[in-house]
Amino acid sequence: MDLSSYVNHLGESARRAAQQLVTLDGATRSAAIRDIAESVNRFAADIVRENEKDLVAARDAKLAPALIERLRLDEERVAKMADALRQIADQPDPIGQTLEASNRPNGLRIEKRRVPLGVVLFFYESRPNVTTDAAALCIKSGNAVILRGGKEAFHTNQALAKFIRAGLEQAKIDPAAVQFVESTDRALVPLLLKLDQLIDVVIPRGGESLIRAVVEQSTIPVLKHFTGNCHIYVDAALDAMKDQVPSVCVNAKTSYPGGAVCNAVEHLLFHESVAAELLPKVCGDLAAKGVEVRGDDKARAIYPSAKAANQDDWGTEYLSFVVGVKVVKSMDEAIEHINRYGSHHTDAILSSSARNIDQFIKRVDSASVMVNASTRFADGGEYGLGAEIGISTDKLHARGPMGAADLTTYKWIVTGDGHVR
Amino acid sequence: MDLSSYVNHLGESARRAAQQLVTLDGATRSAAIRDIAESVNRFAADIVRENEKDLVAARDAKLAPALIERLRLDEERVAKMADALRQIADQPDPIGQTLEASNRPNGLRIEKRRVPLGVVLFFYESRPNVTTDAAALCIKSGNAVILRGGKEAFHTNQALAKFIRAGLEQAKIDPAAVQFVESTDRALVPLLLKLDQLIDVVIPRGGESLIRAVVEQSTIPVLKHFTGNCHIYVDAALDAMKDQVPSVCVNAKTSYPGGAVCNAVEHLLFHESVAAELLPKVCGDLAAKGVEVRGDDKARAIYPSAKAANQDDWGTEYLSFVVGVKVVKSMDEAIEHINRYGSHHTDAILSSSARNIDQFIKRVDSASVMVNASTRFADGGEYGLGAEIGISTDKLHARGPMGAADLTTYKWIVTGDGHVR
Repeated sequence: MDLSSYVNHLGESARRAAQQLVTLDGATRSAAIRDIAESVNRFAADIVRENEKDLVAARDAKLAPALIERLRLDEERVAKMADALRQIADQPDPIGQTLEASNRPNGLRIEKRRVPLGVVLFFYESRPNVTTDAAALCIKSGNAVILRGGKEAFHTNQALAKFIRAGLEQAKIDPAAVQFVESTDRALVPLLLKLDQLIDVVIPRGGESLIRAVVEQSTIPVLKHFTGNCHIYVDAALDAMKDQVPSVCVNAKTSYPGGAVCNAVEHLLFHESVAAELLPKVCGDLAAKGVEVRGDDKARAIYPSAKAANQDDWGTEYLSFVVGVKVVKSMDEAIEHINRYGSHHTDAILSSSARNIDQFIKRVDSASVMVNASTRFADGGEYGLGAEIGISTDKLHARGPMGAADLTTYKWIVTGDGHVR
Repeated sequence: MDLSSYVNHLGESARRAAQQLVTLDGATRSAAIRDIAESVNRFAADIVRENEKDLVAARDAKLAPALIERLRLDEERVAKMADALRQIADQPDPIGQTLEASNRPNGLRIEKRRVPLGVVLFFYESRPNVTTDAAALCIKSGNAVILRGGKEAFHTNQALAKFIRAGLEQAKIDPAAVQFVESTDRALVPLLLKLDQLIDVVIPRGGESLIRAVVEQSTIPVLKHFTGNCHIYVDAALDAMKDQVPSVCVNAKTSYPGGAVCNAVEHLLFHESVAAELLPKVCGDLAAKGVEVRGDDKARAIYPSAKAANQDDWGTEYLSFVVGVKVVKSMDEAIEHINRYGSHHTDAILSSSARNIDQFIKRVDSASVMVNASTRFADGGEYGLGAEIGISTDKLHARGPMGAADLTTYKWIVTGDGHVR
């Protein structure tokens, strides 16, 4: 089969599976997810063995140690993947819920009912648990999905695909409900992105260049999981929060290995009335953890070890142990800075003033606003969604961490008895 | 000011207004809408006088009578516009609602709160009430809006703009919350569509070519109000519904002048077991209203006056007094036909079988599914939304008729007391 026929086959098969999925009840879909969890658990050793092939290739290709660690599975990690599947299976069924209903004066019954999106195309990096999470979230929400994981996890994903397929077949669900792209050929991507008659949404997760390419080439609507240029604003009013400013800032920057995560903080903004007292301490603590500090002139005046930040710094998501630090005259200046240079992902205020917190929440145009908490909490698991397929930096449809319910739409059902208008 | 500076000025002003709007309470926003309603009512004669200029130009340009009628205002129509504004003002405030909230085991409070999208760019046809409806829906939902109406309504819209501006100023709202594009130059459009840093969503309403151009050129997310290739499927099981088949079909095709509306039916599918009895009667009634009937071979065998439909007919939205008629072997065939050729806008089943109705609802992939009712009910007013800014044929974000709540997104607010992860 040539590439173009293969891509069409993926799309057509997914659409056919989606048409079956809308007729199934939630118990059947959840049973399939439990079957997959059981197989994954039982054959953990096989999965780990296939994963070892990917690890050997990754070491040969001299991948960064953090990336290899992310790719690595052991039986404990596989057991955690199976647990996550069971948790998704146990969640309430999002499909079929009545979101709104009314009876109109003319006797018509109007109902807005939650339904699957249809077919999801998902691009993602080489983290094996994302494969099982995404498959389960899509089955849970009644969607067919085409999975295109990072090529570094190819053998691992093939092993997982086998158990996902078996779980679907056991529940009498069309196995095309979850399909893996079986080729690592990059030429597939633009072909997939033109299947707007067969695929309803594409969710790209990974590097900025991948996401830009998808947005440019896709005729399918895209839900972007984009950059996280996150801020913490340290307010003038702090009271009891003052002692916790250093630990929150350090946690937000350094708690994920290498800071290579979208919800790590990239820039700290200190109100000028507290900067002299807090900025040197926070920057010192960060430097002690190996973080490079870049500051504006005012920050460098009170923390001379900082390098000079230039204008490009403020719009940068470092994704590494670098932080930009700036002193602001007012909360207004902080909010304007965040709305101008930020990526509308996650921004935090540390403050004891209810009024300032309220204004910050209203005026900062971000998917997640943290109040006296680390930006690192922006995560589907932390928010109680069970699992996430990504963190949307779009405003339409879904914003912030996305769970099963974010893979749904609704339809209007209008019932009469021969009504004419 | 050159075109590019003007467009940037529109975007920057709208963004500034949006930043004020998020700080205002619902009472202030609704008061502005009531002020606008009052001015529109009081100065109805002035508005009608300006509208007369557009009508003269429209007659000179030999616009179709239906288009001129759509453009025409009299004092009664102006009063209705003001009534619609008051109804929007009276609706509950969509902004600030808590959509979900939970307390996590670690003590974090998670809240999902409804907020405005920000800045809306709206393209629409020359129907004056759309101007006031759209302005009011955007103010109600806390959004700034840039309105680009059809050039045929230019004078009317300029008059309306004056009263909208006055209403906003009276409520101390930045008048840039509602801006009219003051130029009919088409070169503005591509410039506006690149302002993705200033505008959050573009809603194009109007002809298919406009919408295609917007989708192709826009770097701003688009909510499409696209074609309505609507169907009615007449099931084998009908019982008491049988007598109403002709009236529902005729209403769905002909109740809007010229059939030039997206929720008019375009194609009728008859189950073969009832076709002989019902198809000739329905087609005869439609023909008597001036509708041209095009049928497949089986339809023409029992209704010989029908012209022959060709393969292109099934995918066509006629937007005129033409209807395609087809005989199907089963409901499965009808559902497959609708999902393949339809535009996922509005599709109806006429049936007395609860099982068939349930299957049709689940399997027809459309924004609105009508059960024993005319497709013409697919409308925000009929659904109780008060007013609509359009009917989305997209699946993401909003589907079907869109009211004020569809012009919102949400943000996650996470509150701790120094929490670290």
